[in-house]
Amino acid sequence: MSQIQIPDTMTAVVLDSYSGVEGLRVEQRPVPKPGINEVLVKVAASPINPSDLAFLIGRYGFKKPTPVVPGFEGSGTVVAAGEGFMGRFRLGKRVSCRSQDKGDGVWADYMVTPVKDAQPLDQSVSLEQGAMSGANPLTATAFLEIAKKGGHKAIVLTAAAGALGQMVNHLAQSEGIQVINIVRRDTQVEYLKGQGATIVLNSSDEDFDQQLHDACHQYEARLAFDAVSGPLTQQLLKALPPYSKVTVFGCLSEKLTQAGVDQLAFQNKVVDGFWLGPWLENKNLIQIMMIWRRAQKLLLKSEIRAQYPFQDAKKAIQEYQSQMTGGKILLVPEL
Amino acid sequence: MSQIQIPDTMTAVVLDSYSGVEGLRVEQRPVPKPGINEVLVKVAASPINPSDLAFLIGRYGFKKPTPVVPGFEGSGTVVAAGEGFMGRFRLGKRVSCRSQDKGDGVWADYMVTPVKDAQPLDQSVSLEQGAMSGANPLTATAFLEIAKKGGHKAIVLTAAAGALGQMVNHLAQSEGIQVINIVRRDTQVEYLKGQGATIVLNSSDEDFDQQLHDACHQYEARLAFDAVSGPLTQQLLKALPPYSKVTVFGCLSEKLTQAGVDQLAFQNKVVDGFWLGPWLENKNLIQIMMIWRRAQKLLLKSEIRAQYPFQDAKKAIQEYQSQMTGGKILLVPEL
Repeated sequence: MSQIQIPDTMTAVVLDSYSGVEGLRVEQRPVPKPGINEVLVKVAASPINPSDLAFLIGRYGFKKPTPVVPGFEGSGTVVAAGEGFMGRFRLGKRVSCRSQDKGDGVWADYMVTPVKDAQPLDQSVSLEQGAMSGANPLTATAFLEIAKKGGHKAIVLTAAAGALGQMVNHLAQSEGIQVINIVRRDTQVEYLKGQGATIVLNSSDEDFDQQLHDACHQYEARLAFDAVSGPLTQQLLKALPPYSKVTVFGCLSEKLTQAGVDQLAFQNKVVDGFWLGPWLENKNLIQIMMIWRRAQKLLLKSEIRAQYPFQDAKKAIQEYQSQMTGGKILLVPEL
Repeated sequence: MSQIQIPDTMTAVVLDSYSGVEGLRVEQRPVPKPGINEVLVKVAASPINPSDLAFLIGRYGFKKPTPVVPGFEGSGTVVAAGEGFMGRFRLGKRVSCRSQDKGDGVWADYMVTPVKDAQPLDQSVSLEQGAMSGANPLTATAFLEIAKKGGHKAIVLTAAAGALGQMVNHLAQSEGIQVINIVRRDTQVEYLKGQGATIVLNSSDEDFDQQLHDACHQYEARLAFDAVSGPLTQQLLKALPPYSKVTVFGCLSEKLTQAGVDQLAFQNKVVDGFWLGPWLENKNLIQIMMIWRRAQKLLLKSEIRAQYPFQDAKKAIQEYQSQMTGGKILLVPEL
């Protein structure tokens, strides 16, 4: 094992029980050691994403045995490599790293990850921006691929003012696909329009349902990506023309998806879901590298609202929960 | 136009507004006259179906201009034919008749219907049983076709003790497809088992969720037909293995379908809907005649709980609403 100046202990955010922020504490624990085909990353930054919030309350696609370090994506520098051929070539490299369904995540000074989940960052990408190159750009890429494969000329997107929404808009503009954006506040309408989005609807408007119906029919949108769930899913279904689909990928409302039988049965509409993991698993290594490379070009648009040391993870999460759009919040090692 | 002994006026149930039973009245109105390729049916009986209840409150797949006679299916004798070749061959025939998305329905002494929607009844089928040969047997046929086309060896069915449920079980037994039946009462469990059903679960049992999970996994059921909606849809989703589908076709709970994002996104499950109309429209005339013929063989199993004259339609509907399984309620002309 090759190695450079690594301390014995580190600061880590640890989840003891799947009870949200309440289940978190910060502790000193030993720095982990990389195994075969694994690398040790000195973490630079990790964003708080909706998927992290779902994980903290036990509502993600899997649970890990506790205590466990949360954090699904981040960035850092490879400071050690375990046995195996590939890891050594990553030594000293700035990487974007992901945590999968096993082992500790990114919210710690150091993390161990398989080589394939530590992808080199382009020189033009900062460690802060690179920390967000996992979930959002790849999801945006997936949405556009799904839309194109389905022959869609227009898509609907909820929670569109977030980082993911901006990436989807950026990609869709280059692909010539119309996005019907849904946000909750007038400031978000103005913000997205300032970024070049042409249709941005405010779900707080009294005539929102009518606006959405008109937009969906004018642009023949038959596919919606919904991060919110709850009653909004049914509003989407009602607004979309017959033979449409709502693909749910988040639960920002913290409510179950609602759908009317009239929409499902009489209008031939469908509700399904999207998860990045299986979508990526169906890609081969070359496809993943191309997607990754392209995803990095989307990063320039990500706004960072605040950075907190791991020590203040609880406070950071609470701030994120209080306003989930308008810039990402990063967790970082003590400055 | 050929004609035999037809009065000038008739008793008809009329819906004035889409407000359920409150919107109904009974009146004397002129007997309608058949147009080209239409026949006049002297109605013998018409069941109250869930689809009728949905129509009365404006929640069916279409609304007709009011005032309108409700009633989607029934039986009777063809007593007059309009111009056109086909109608005359139906004169004097006992038929099953359907009302489509235009014009008055079956809840009247006489109804006009296109020839294609007045299919001759087999000699072995009574007018009472023949009145129910539209919706339920055709829907049961559709469910089995969908299951077979999807390669399913097992399906889940809610509200399974009703007439439709019994037909589905009957057909599934002959096709070698396992039905996991869900009912609400122990008496329904015993009743269905008495009819030969092997798996009948009571959703009122405390460990129902576990029972359903175990049954779905044991028989690898990945398709559920749900007449209930509301929270039960999410219970179905949770019990089914990954890559399953719940097809909603009714709303007996009178609640929106609920679905968890965890089920949709993380487990690749889908919620869609079924409506008989479009399914039938995709069939050609020969297919419809074969389906119709086969459907009549299912009728022997339909239990009739009560018969009410059209005059007492409101009371009949209220009785049906109070208990929607355990035998059909028929509306009939004054005895």
